[in-house]
Amino acid sequence: MARVTTDAHTGPVPADIEIAEAADLLPVVDLARDRLGIAAEHLLPYGHTKAKIALEHVRSLEGRPEGALVLVTAISPTPAGEGKTTTSVGLADALSRLGERTVVALREPSMGPVFGIKGGAAGGGYAQVVPMADINLNFTGDFAAVAAAHNLLSAVLDNHLHHGNELDVDPRTITWKRVVDLNDRALREVVVGLGGPTNGVPREDGFDIVVASEVMAILCLATSVADLRERLGAIVVGYTRGREPVRARDLQVHGAMTAILKDALAPNLVQTLEHTPALVHGGPFANIAHGCNSVVATRTALRLADYVVTEAGFGADLGAEKFVDITCRASGLRPAAVVVVATVRALKYHGGVEVADLATESLEALAAGMANLRRHLANVREVYGLPAVVALNRFPSDTDAEVAEVGRLVEAEGVRCYEATHFAEGGRGAEALARGVLEVIEAAEADMQLVYPDDAPLARKAEAVATRVYGAAAVTFEPRAARRLAAIEAEGYGHLPVCIAKTQSSFSTDPSLRGAPEGHTVTVREVRLSAGAGFVVLVTGEIMTMPGLPKVPASTRIDVDDDGRIVGLS
Amino acid sequence: MARVTTDAHTGPVPADIEIAEAADLLPVVDLARDRLGIAAEHLLPYGHTKAKIALEHVRSLEGRPEGALVLVTAISPTPAGEGKTTTSVGLADALSRLGERTVVALREPSMGPVFGIKGGAAGGGYAQVVPMADINLNFTGDFAAVAAAHNLLSAVLDNHLHHGNELDVDPRTITWKRVVDLNDRALREVVVGLGGPTNGVPREDGFDIVVASEVMAILCLATSVADLRERLGAIVVGYTRGREPVRARDLQVHGAMTAILKDALAPNLVQTLEHTPALVHGGPFANIAHGCNSVVATRTALRLADYVVTEAGFGADLGAEKFVDITCRASGLRPAAVVVVATVRALKYHGGVEVADLATESLEALAAGMANLRRHLANVREVYGLPAVVALNRFPSDTDAEVAEVGRLVEAEGVRCYEATHFAEGGRGAEALARGVLEVIEAAEADMQLVYPDDAPLARKAEAVATRVYGAAAVTFEPRAARRLAAIEAEGYGHLPVCIAKTQSSFSTDPSLRGAPEGHTVTVREVRLSAGAGFVVLVTGEIMTMPGLPKVPASTRIDVDDDGRIVGLS
Repeated sequence: MARVTTDAHTGPVPADIEIAEAADLLPVVDLARDRLGIAAEHLLPYGHTKAKIALEHVRSLEGRPEGALVLVTAISPTPAGEGKTTTSVGLADALSRLGERTVVALREPSMGPVFGIKGGAAGGGYAQVVPMADINLNFTGDFAAVAAAHNLLSAVLDNHLHHGNELDVDPRTITWKRVVDLNDRALREVVVGLGGPTNGVPREDGFDIVVASEVMAILCLATSVADLRERLGAIVVGYTRGREPVRARDLQVHGAMTAILKDALAPNLVQTLEHTPALVHGGPFANIAHGCNSVVATRTALRLADYVVTEAGFGADLGAEKFVDITCRASGLRPAAVVVVATVRALKYHGGVEVADLATESLEALAAGMANLRRHLANVREVYGLPAVVALNRFPSDTDAEVAEVGRLVEAEGVRCYEATHFAEGGRGAEALARGVLEVIEAAEADMQLVYPDDAPLARKAEAVATRVYGAAAVTFEPRAARRLAAIEAEGYGHLPVCIAKTQSSFSTDPSLRGAPEGHTVTVREVRLSAGAGFVVLVTGEIMTMPGLPKVPASTRIDVDDDGRIVGLS
Repeated sequence: MARVTTDAHTGPVPADIEIAEAADLLPVVDLARDRLGIAAEHLLPYGHTKAKIALEHVRSLEGRPEGALVLVTAISPTPAGEGKTTTSVGLADALSRLGERTVVALREPSMGPVFGIKGGAAGGGYAQVVPMADINLNFTGDFAAVAAAHNLLSAVLDNHLHHGNELDVDPRTITWKRVVDLNDRALREVVVGLGGPTNGVPREDGFDIVVASEVMAILCLATSVADLRERLGAIVVGYTRGREPVRARDLQVHGAMTAILKDALAPNLVQTLEHTPALVHGGPFANIAHGCNSVVATRTALRLADYVVTEAGFGADLGAEKFVDITCRASGLRPAAVVVVATVRALKYHGGVEVADLATESLEALAAGMANLRRHLANVREVYGLPAVVALNRFPSDTDAEVAEVGRLVEAEGVRCYEATHFAEGGRGAEALARGVLEVIEAAEADMQLVYPDDAPLARKAEAVATRVYGAAAVTFEPRAARRLAAIEAEGYGHLPVCIAKTQSSFSTDPSLRGAPEGHTVTVREVRLSAGAGFVVLVTGEIMTMPGLPKVPASTRIDVDDDGRIVGLS
């Protein structure tokens, strides 16, 4: 284990919102000018500490040399928490502290989890992006615009059925649901169009959370307004009775959807607590979509900085695989290095320890749980062809012996491991990690490999991911899924990459299988075409696209105090 | 008829979006500083031509002397169009041209009509507020915030039913629907909670358009963040099995709703084409809610200007009555003068002419249709106690003889009538009107009267409006409505004003009865409690709270061109 910080702060850290509210933010105009060289007229400010970078300026950066991209991913997520976003922020702050021009590019939080169980998603402790309350609530309106564009397509589609159905859409084949940016279980399955002839055609429908919208995925993969419009037009909402796809452009609604989303395509600029510029933009799910912030934001960041830290959702089997096979394939982005986040607690969990016992030292469990991290590292290095380092995100309960043991185990794999204490210490706590990342980038020639070629059949693509990344023995398709896959290939979508929606908790499709299960079978239950986003979703297991609220939701703790300050956000 | 402009432009006027896109806008920072004396640090800019005025600054204006408030209302709306918003904008521009410090305070447009039939709502011709596309789409996110707060309450309520229903809510009594800012007929009546035990409790539900949300009405009546929070907590969503009201505060969700809405409470500053400052903020329906922009915006405008022009929805029987009896009663606002907008075409329509024949001169129809305007003028002057002038919004097809006849008929009522050509000419075309308004304000001592006192029983309040304003002989309540009214009074809400939801097309509840019907009966079909907004809604006739889309919606014409400009908005 190299360069462990010697003054790791393990005392209590104030609540996220308290740290965030006490922060001294740079005016976004100054941040843009001083850190990124962007003049005020190229910003669209939203208040004094948030701004969009105008799309005209984004376009003007084309052709500029690009910095090095660092992808932050993690071991398979556990209830113990890993801290991927905090590590991304901490690493970016540490790179800034080392004098490197750095930008962190992250996803926007969804209001669903903010009011549910998980809380906000702007980092935590002393590794946050701010203004925290603004970012977690409404922000610059991007998610509302995605929901409006998505639901306009729904309304126009149902209206088409109501006014004579000229396209001869078969209502039973409609796959386009509605969305809302909340956790609302009662909307998962609904019947719409009730109440008589003036209220449309009754049919089964449902709502997803907005991060599960294909429009969100499209916003995050589109490279320009024209590309956005083209992709929106390509959305397939269902089929005619003659089994022809019905697209948004057949309903002549993609232009209006583009108009709603035009401003949302411009990336959002905010800052970390240590004034590192942060582009926080877009936020698709990492199961039924590709799970990383917008290509526009990451590309813009690379043209503005020497180092860009970005994050992919869930573990390296899901987010990082999709980053490589979907985002990088589509955009041409190429990471220079990958940081795999691990924690002592999560490793012990993968080693069989229950949540209640995670504070108890166990070197044996650590060693057993290392199987999970080991496979992720092998995937990153051997399958994706990318140099890796491990960030050990230290928690107060971790013992020095455990921390040392993780270092020993990781380095035995030929990978450098850095303890990081950014949660408690900010960027200072991730300086060793930052130096390690710089060394890896300098030393290694990253040679990113796609997991499968474009021209492989869709089933072979699934097999490649399952066997090479998940350690599975085989992929099977339930009969209906197999038929749908064949139909999608017959419709001419066989060249698209696959987006496998799998539990994040295991390499297998069984969330209870911790560590590194082998020889399992991946069963695809359902196939969904995201023709506008440009991938085919293969659903394994139960994938929840509309979360529920717990019995006591976080919303009960969120309030505005007598001074007009938001309290209770976490 | 006084001071008719002699150079009325009656040629073709370019499309609204073309005029708006060609406009030369002042930077909002300059507008605020030069026209309103607001320093940049007190603004929350949204791009360069939109801003919110920070609530701290809004508060700091308390105690400043207030300017004169001019309320723009109209005759009963017709398919021919009246032009209330264009008249508000034109009048404000004309007052500015006359050297008066003027602000226009308007409602925000809803995206539903923008994509449906009606189109945008930022004025038209040379009397618009800009940036037009921004104001009509997304704007500063207020409506999205209203929808999120509203739907969070829905989600928490259904979640409460799902997790054991501790409050013993009777699901059959739930009156709190969901909302979306679109015209979507298929969502009017739905069944939610389907799909088994993890998806909540199945029940009938429905969606309203967001302008029909009680949260919108609350946002527009709240005077501070604390008042907003209090009102949100007072929302009644349904009843327990023991018939006790269930409030948002019982579900502990009003704090989180307030957090979502905090920024939305700050008024939005934009400008007219002629650089008159415009506060465009909030937009409740004028039938099931009170139908005018926020009290915060109007109050702020009055503290920043000598003249404030504001608009109330529909005709003077609906919007102006509610402005007096709900908004003014609650806020203490007092108009100094009322402008009643009329057109030759609308008067002929009220005189019995069909839409296809409105371009044909008919002095007889004008004289017959004058009955409608005459009653509105009598209501404004004698019932509301406010001085009135008539703005005759001239259309190209109007003949000089017709215009002169309207002037003669109006002046026979002792009211000044001014031809106005702001649509074609901007503020110059409304200068005569502006001078007339200034004279009326100077001459008359407005003495606003509420139509009924707080302590009258709810049924008496309805009767007062129906007989004094609508010319009805009586009010009857269907049995269910009568029971509900009695229950609401028993719950302690009898002191609230009533908000009568009636067709805008007639003084009666029958939309086909033009002119000034008399002796009719107003039948209340349904009673709804808006305890947070602070009124009791009495529904007469069929009131649509979720519009549908036409066969060819406006969305088919809206697009983004190759230069990234939005086209097709109207």
